[in-house]
Amino acid sequence: MELTLDHIRNAADRIRGIAYPTPILTSEALNNRVGAEVFLKAEIFQRAGAFKFRGAYNATASLTREEQQQGFAAASSGNHGQGLALSAKLLGTNATILMPSNAPQAKIDAIKGYGGEVVLYDRYRENRDALQAEITRSRNAITISAYDNFGVMAGAGTVALEMLEEVPDLDEIIIPVSGGGLSAGCATAAQGIRPQIEIWGAEPTLANDTQRSLASGVRERQEIPKSIADGLLVPTPGELTFPINQKRLAGIRLATDEEIVEAMRFLFLQMKIVVEPSGAIGLATLLNAPRRERKTKIGLVLTGGNVDLPRFCELLA
Amino acid sequence: MELTLDHIRNAADRIRGIAYPTPILTSEALNNRVGAEVFLKAEIFQRAGAFKFRGAYNATASLTREEQQQGFAAASSGNHGQGLALSAKLLGTNATILMPSNAPQAKIDAIKGYGGEVVLYDRYRENRDALQAEITRSRNAITISAYDNFGVMAGAGTVALEMLEEVPDLDEIIIPVSGGGLSAGCATAAQGIRPQIEIWGAEPTLANDTQRSLASGVRERQEIPKSIADGLLVPTPGELTFPINQKRLAGIRLATDEEIVEAMRFLFLQMKIVVEPSGAIGLATLLNAPRRERKTKIGLVLTGGNVDLPRFCELLA
Repeated sequence: MELTLDHIRNAADRIRGIAYPTPILTSEALNNRVGAEVFLKAEIFQRAGAFKFRGAYNATASLTREEQQQGFAAASSGNHGQGLALSAKLLGTNATILMPSNAPQAKIDAIKGYGGEVVLYDRYRENRDALQAEITRSRNAITISAYDNFGVMAGAGTVALEMLEEVPDLDEIIIPVSGGGLSAGCATAAQGIRPQIEIWGAEPTLANDTQRSLASGVRERQEIPKSIADGLLVPTPGELTFPINQKRLAGIRLATDEEIVEAMRFLFLQMKIVVEPSGAIGLATLLNAPRRERKTKIGLVLTGGNVDLPRFCELLA
Repeated sequence: MELTLDHIRNAADRIRGIAYPTPILTSEALNNRVGAEVFLKAEIFQRAGAFKFRGAYNATASLTREEQQQGFAAASSGNHGQGLALSAKLLGTNATILMPSNAPQAKIDAIKGYGGEVVLYDRYRENRDALQAEITRSRNAITISAYDNFGVMAGAGTVALEMLEEVPDLDEIIIPVSGGGLSAGCATAAQGIRPQIEIWGAEPTLANDTQRSLASGVRERQEIPKSIADGLLVPTPGELTFPINQKRLAGIRLATDEEIVEAMRFLFLQMKIVVEPSGAIGLATLLNAPRRERKTKIGLVLTGGNVDLPRFCELLA
């Protein structure tokens, strides 16, 4: 199977009226600083606070009624779990989410708020995949990977579809990369519409598994790193997403934790919005790059806004 | 002179393409909690971070070129000062802003960033009006009151014009009240279009000068109170605004500082936006009111988002 623009257009039809078409924000101060026109796709305003709802809903709404009744399961640092728990609620079924015990409390609480069941594990000591397999087996649930799933990728790709509807002449889009589902979906959508567009990934300097994998040509595995970008800490690129990203991405840009915090501060003070560390990494790469010389139109996905207040203030104040 | 819907429509023409038409945000979680449909007019995204730019620009762009060249002056807790400094910059002239020395640093810095001159005074000890008169005299500047000015009121009223364009069947609008310019302008605009709409003011419990003045029928004066709502601390309602508010407001609702903080926390966690204390007071009155029984459409103005990060975290964390 190959992911195509048609899959993403079908996903857009499926989530219409259920996921929000989020706004694109702009800032004169930002344009002046970067030396380009920057368009921020604010998925912080998406249902469940992140773009993940698009993919989770698209993937689960595509299942048969019988499959849906088995319930869903996923391992998630939080945002996919929220999207999946809300999808389960909307579809009249249940979801079990395996989460790192140090995931933000806001994310854990939100999943429970949607009626989801949360199982916590130690991200640095326990084997996520084995635990996940056991949950799926014991509950006879359908596992919905946070990224390695064509329905999830297609749903995520609707982000780029909306961006190009509103700003058709974007020259590039910068996308946070973890498992690689958002970049795979958005690159497929965007290059399907506008072949010359450049899609760049953004990773934490200390969690650059996709950058290293693109360089070596094979999926490199890393120890789970300790970046503040809690949504970007997978051990290795997705099996299904990596070949797509290999084919489509122009490359990966990196940002340190300090640069991510600087971007979060800019978004708070200049734009009055709350973006979680993982969601601010694209802007972080841009703020710390040399000022652009030519007039470029750059799209950026602010992927989510689910961050605890104490954590936010600990990082920024 | 009487403020009319025509003044506000003219102001809308004057600021078009210069002030932003800000978005209206909604939240299922909020609607469920309040028991009504709530529409949040996000003036936090306005230029200079607050609705005040609308009035400042409208008032100053209406002046003759000669008057503009004299420069502007105002006493302001910050947001009007920012709006006026930015207006001066756009009109190629200068502005001097008299500010309380305990105004948020973000507001002071922003005024200077627009090229404005800041003069600080002690809000609790010095006489603002005397200082202001001295600044105006020594600089031969044109004073632009933050509220007691028909051009400022008309510009502020464009907020309600935009709200009713987008949601024509609003039943009520809740508006933070300080000097009373925003409520006077918005009430005039809204009731000009939709006579039956109710306009409610919101004041800090400890700074309820307009509530007491409406009750007594005369402009009551208070000691400057110490609410966290730094934008709502005037000693008495405006001379020009009060008769309009007296005629048009359904009443005033109050919120404590603790309730304001709760509203700011809700806006951060649920809606991913940054609203300053004065801007969150309308929501604070709503979150703490009894749950509505009938289906009502309520508009709320989130007036500004200019708050320092350390202050924000001190209040909320």
